[in-house]
Amino acid sequence: MATTALLVLDLVGTFAFALNGALIAVRSTRLDIVGVVTLGMITALGGGTIRDVFLGALPPATFVDWRYLVVAAAGGLIAFSIGHYLERIYGAINVLDAAGLSLFAVTGALKALDLGFGPLQAVVVGGITGVGGGTLRDVLIRQVPAVLSSGLYAVPAIVGATVVVLADVADTRGPVAAVGAAAVCFAIRMLGVHFDVNAPFPPGRPPAESS
Amino acid sequence: MATTALLVLDLVGTFAFALNGALIAVRSTRLDIVGVVTLGMITALGGGTIRDVFLGALPPATFVDWRYLVVAAAGGLIAFSIGHYLERIYGAINVLDAAGLSLFAVTGALKALDLGFGPLQAVVVGGITGVGGGTLRDVLIRQVPAVLSSGLYAVPAIVGATVVVLADVADTRGPVAAVGAAAVCFAIRMLGVHFDVNAPFPPGRPPAESS
Amino acid sequence: MATTALLVLDLVGTFAFALNGALIAVRSTRLDIVGVVTLGMITALGGGTIRDVFLGALPPATFVDWRYLVVAAAGGLIAFSIGHYLERIYGAINVLDAAGLSLFAVTGALKALDLGFGPLQAVVVGGITGVGGGTLRDVLIRQVPAVLSSGLYAVPAIVGATVVVLADVADTRGPVAAVGAAAVCFAIRMLGVHFDVNAPFPPGRPPAESS
Repeated sequence: MATTALLVLDLVGTFAFALNGALIAVRSTRLDIVGVVTLGMITALGGGTIRDVFLGALPPATFVDWRYLVVAAAGGLIAFSIGHYLERIYGAINVLDAAGLSLFAVTGALKALDLGFGPLQAVVVGGITGVGGGTLRDVLIRQVPAVLSSGLYAVPAIVGATVVVLADVADTRGPVAAVGAAAVCFAIRMLGVHFDVNAPFPPGRPPAESS
Repeated sequence: MATTALLVLDLVGTFAFALNGALIAVRSTRLDIVGVVTLGMITALGGGTIRDVFLGALPPATFVDWRYLVVAAAGGLIAFSIGHYLERIYGAINVLDAAGLSLFAVTGALKALDLGFGPLQAVVVGGITGVGGGTLRDVLIRQVPAVLSSGLYAVPAIVGATVVVLADVADTRGPVAAVGAAAVCFAIRMLGVHFDVNAPFPPGRPPAESS
Repeated sequence: MATTALLVLDLVGTFAFALNGALIAVRSTRLDIVGVVTLGMITALGGGTIRDVFLGALPPATFVDWRYLVVAAAGGLIAFSIGHYLERIYGAINVLDAAGLSLFAVTGALKALDLGFGPLQAVVVGGITGVGGGTLRDVLIRQVPAVLSSGLYAVPAIVGATVVVLADVADTRGPVAAVGAAAVCFAIRMLGVHFDVNAPFPPGRPPAESS
């Protein structure tokens, strides 16, 4: 797959997560511009940094390549400046989160394949790349991470990573497969948010009433 | 020491921590199968991953070797399926946590020695391996980590790691020393839980009444 | 710059952060000696460890070099022993935190330059080194990290790192530039604490009344 296409998808995911993290920070009171941009950058760059630790690809691309730093900072600054408009758009925070999740799940899995890891590892690292940034964000603002509490958060990331790994196995890898896999992940995530879908609950322990 | 024996101990520790993390997740309401298995896997694989960062042994063995991934996932799924029985067993959560702590403290220290680190580093990394997974678990479910709040949590891990390092210095390294050191750690941890033992409190600041 | 001077600054920063983290732990009830020293060591060694992950310089110097381990443990033990005197000194916790922040921002940036990273990366990693340990500390004791909530926490670290990087570009690098940059960072941080300065708040969202 063209390295350029992969980079573009990765940067779009970085931008989406930076907007998302910063919008969530704007919604919290008492966070100034530094806090807002910092939370945006951690959300945007956290997943790729954890990915590169797992792949042994240090120093992480998110740090070495200035484009990631600049795109993440720009997303955070834009959300700071016009966040009070953006957050009135119904679902903007969820859409951006799903976009970052989808793009990072796919690009994370592809990077693992590029470095010679097996299909199982590629799927796992795709999932970790997708959920990593949002998990750091949630820990820092003291929420239970979405990956634990939200029915369909890890599942779409793993499905998206699996689709792109299967395409690779079937020798039909390319930008089309990557975008298609990300679209599948995005669709599952948004359906999960819309219908509040959850995976099965433990036996003998009915889910709580709406919390 | 036979590599196979070390691997077996490491996988048993992985299984114990996966059961433990998933049981704690089951006890929390509103966590579905994905949240339960995810928390089990993070508890099981977190300590070894942090260990390999400190040892510079990336990519981490917990990720490269599929057996760790499969054993951790299996532990999480078993706890999900029959967790409501398991958790009725008095102390099951504490016993599993002490087992994971003990086995990881010993295998972490041995891995450091194998890679040529000194005795001090081996003891430190043994302690980190033992407490790392549980600390990530506690941060994710928003509890003060046991390593800070619970009297004897880091101490038994450090004692266990020290025993196995001393055995290595005394040239009596082997499976027997490893299992013995883990047993010492396990015994101290369980006594600490049973009698609610704490290390000394800061002077001029009497411990709070039972919290 | 003399490696020795850099090491000394780094060890002083380690000691300051160990005292700070342990003093904060002492202020919390129900933390015994192990919890106090552990929190001190994590605060002291966390920033340098994260720095070395970003620089791909694993295993981390904070772990391989026994001097960091010993200085961090000593700081924690001293704060445990005489913390109830120390914390009566007005502002001791804030001064120690600002000292650790300043020294680590400068030494982190210099280490990045030494390893051949560019100026942007050196500034970023200086900032991360400065705020990393305190952020881990705050996450473990379940506070919103200062880097997000406190007006001037990341800013002085970034300014200090920028000063030392500019000195390097201008070929006037040396112990004097390093200490000067740390002093600038320290002064900005302490002024920020004293006057409760914050960076600008998001438009359309006036800062909350004093929280």
